[in-house]
Amino acid sequence: MKSSVGGLPIQGVRLGAVKAPVYRNKDRDDLLLMAFDEGSVGAAVTTTNQFCAAPVHVLRAHLASTPHVRFWLLNAGNANAGTGEAGMEACDQTVAELATNAGVAKDSIWPFSTGVIGEPLPVESICHALPRAIDALNGSVDHWERASRAVMTTDTHPKLRHIQCVIQGKTVTLTGMAKGSGMIHPNMATMFGLIASDVVMSAGCLQSILAGSVRHSFNCVTVDGDTSTNDACALVATQTAGHRLIDDPKSPDAQQFASALSDLCDDLAEMLARDGEGATKFVRVICEEAVSDSDAHTIANTVALSPLVKTALAASDPNWGRIVAAVGRAPVSEIAIERVNVWINDVQIVQNGGRHPQYTEEAGQAAMNPPEIDIRIAMGAGSGYCRVMTCDLTKEYVRINAEYRT
Amino acid sequence: MKSSVGGLPIQGVRLGAVKAPVYRNKDRDDLLLMAFDEGSVGAAVTTTNQFCAAPVHVLRAHLASTPHVRFWLLNAGNANAGTGEAGMEACDQTVAELATNAGVAKDSIWPFSTGVIGEPLPVESICHALPRAIDALNGSVDHWERASRAVMTTDTHPKLRHIQCVIQGKTVTLTGMAKGSGMIHPNMATMFGLIASDVVMSAGCLQSILAGSVRHSFNCVTVDGDTSTNDACALVATQTAGHRLIDDPKSPDAQQFASALSDLCDDLAEMLARDGEGATKFVRVICEEAVSDSDAHTIANTVALSPLVKTALAASDPNWGRIVAAVGRAPVSEIAIERVNVWINDVQIVQNGGRHPQYTEEAGQAAMNPPEIDIRIAMGAGSGYCRVMTCDLTKEYVRINAEYRT
Repeated sequence: MKSSVGGLPIQGVRLGAVKAPVYRNKDRDDLLLMAFDEGSVGAAVTTTNQFCAAPVHVLRAHLASTPHVRFWLLNAGNANAGTGEAGMEACDQTVAELATNAGVAKDSIWPFSTGVIGEPLPVESICHALPRAIDALNGSVDHWERASRAVMTTDTHPKLRHIQCVIQGKTVTLTGMAKGSGMIHPNMATMFGLIASDVVMSAGCLQSILAGSVRHSFNCVTVDGDTSTNDACALVATQTAGHRLIDDPKSPDAQQFASALSDLCDDLAEMLARDGEGATKFVRVICEEAVSDSDAHTIANTVALSPLVKTALAASDPNWGRIVAAVGRAPVSEIAIERVNVWINDVQIVQNGGRHPQYTEEAGQAAMNPPEIDIRIAMGAGSGYCRVMTCDLTKEYVRINAEYRT
Repeated sequence: MKSSVGGLPIQGVRLGAVKAPVYRNKDRDDLLLMAFDEGSVGAAVTTTNQFCAAPVHVLRAHLASTPHVRFWLLNAGNANAGTGEAGMEACDQTVAELATNAGVAKDSIWPFSTGVIGEPLPVESICHALPRAIDALNGSVDHWERASRAVMTTDTHPKLRHIQCVIQGKTVTLTGMAKGSGMIHPNMATMFGLIASDVVMSAGCLQSILAGSVRHSFNCVTVDGDTSTNDACALVATQTAGHRLIDDPKSPDAQQFASALSDLCDDLAEMLARDGEGATKFVRVICEEAVSDSDAHTIANTVALSPLVKTALAASDPNWGRIVAAVGRAPVSEIAIERVNVWINDVQIVQNGGRHPQYTEEAGQAAMNPPEIDIRIAMGAGSGYCRVMTCDLTKEYVRINAEYRT
């Protein structure tokens, strides 16, 4: 946790949030424009869902066409997913309208949408709001704050953080925001990660570093296992920090930036899990001593996703049998059950595959009570490691998702 | 649905249910003995969970040792899983005690346990109850009924059915019971399927036919994705129906029996999904036109497991975007989104990957209201087919699983 709450201005970045409206019956900002000065380059990691939304297709095409980026255009309230060819045209219309209004090339604009799936994007409302959003553009901290609220859907609070590092004697700043609360799962969560930095870096280097950071942060958070149609984590570098161009991801300068970005992404990802729909507990599932990092991820994920583990967490019930049952069904090749050890916070529950001889229900109960729980599973098989961030499953989750559209 | 409610006596089978007690603070039967006359042979399919319970290990070892089976010994209330070496010894003690009391070989006894994971099996209570269970042995329908109640955990009602077929002019009867309500998932559900028949059949043929029936029944039902440590589906053939021995699974006689067994297993599996913890709706997810049956199973399962689809079902909300989002994240190689069609009951929701042009929210709502929902997904890619049975996800599921041990 090395990043700090709130945003810092990034030279070359301006933000404008307005009410389009896209959200029905809500008096709030739901359209966000992020403008980047000429020379900015971008990187992005997008959902692996094959049923991905129109804006994801368009974003990918634009990124493939040029690394130069001038605008991110985001709306909350409508995902523009499951909308077929009409959805692609709707997305294209909003992008074309912005390109005309702002006098930039279409492929320098990246669209993002989040919200209800399957309903037509309200193109006219969005196009009508664009001039107001352009007029509102401003780089202040207040505008970052307002922007972080405009992209929320079922989030209970905005998620905005910043971090700094020093490269070649120059201070490099990163400000990032995220949105997401449910439909959260690796590859990717139903989330946006929107990060800007003044770092001077080539597009290829930026993409490589972003992919690395996403792997252990946004791709290691799960609320309900539902991979969204719309997820994206995007990073822009405005090239204004004043140091020499960084082009090699393996260079010390690049590593310095990567470290700051990783911390920022980890902290934003943690905020997503903490704000999981209906969540009352934040839970880290740590799998270590697995055959490989990949196995560790699979095992930790299986535990983190188990409805039975998650309901036990909600009830503060040390029903640890559910944890080992989830470990046992993880799709990894071979598990030496008799070498598995499990801790809940500092209390060892399982020793060599069975209940720890000194374990007492009272100690287990005490370990399950806090609002923050670490479940640590040591497989005794190798050095594979992964930490997955998640939350408990409560009646409130069911209520939120039953009532989402009404 | 060709099987009928309730049991029919099977010649050579007697049942004795008593209170051990294993269940804490409950005045109910929780120990069941099923006795089979000499000459009976058995078949079984067991959980794929690597953290499987002691009785599963013992059952497998005994089945590997001999196909002849004289007793099934079952308890509810304690899973004897996650109990390490002590759990194996506990299981062995109860089996040894029964072998001595009944004068049969140890490896002719198959143990089954279900209930809380990780707590020591109350061996003394069980051994103490065995003589009473032996005294109670009786083949009547009433005893089948009482037995079907003794194996329940969170089930809201017993699950007992029968079916008959005619082989070589002789009537062959199958009576089966199941238990299971949560921790239900393919390979296998947290369930027992316990089936007896008077069919005259070799053990190899019996095993082959059982495996086939389980594939599309018990292995196609899911409540919450949690594969249990204890699941087993077992079938005994008492060889008393009077026809000639069936030894070839491909013979018409074998197919006749297989068909009856399949119908019985399908109906029992459906009862499990209908009794899913907190369920208010029974849902069939049918995937057709997939590249393969295996892909169809993966896709149908992903939809059936999605918490977002399941909460929408609970709310009768035709939030069909969640269905296509789940299809899109199913781990199959390639999906032609533009060829996907989806129906909820008789209402076509999605046509060629987008909302059907004639679809109305009212029609979608009407389709989601009934307590029985078919979600049919046509992939337009081949002839692969699978039907998965599941239920909705309600606040009541969370309550049941939060309060399970208290």
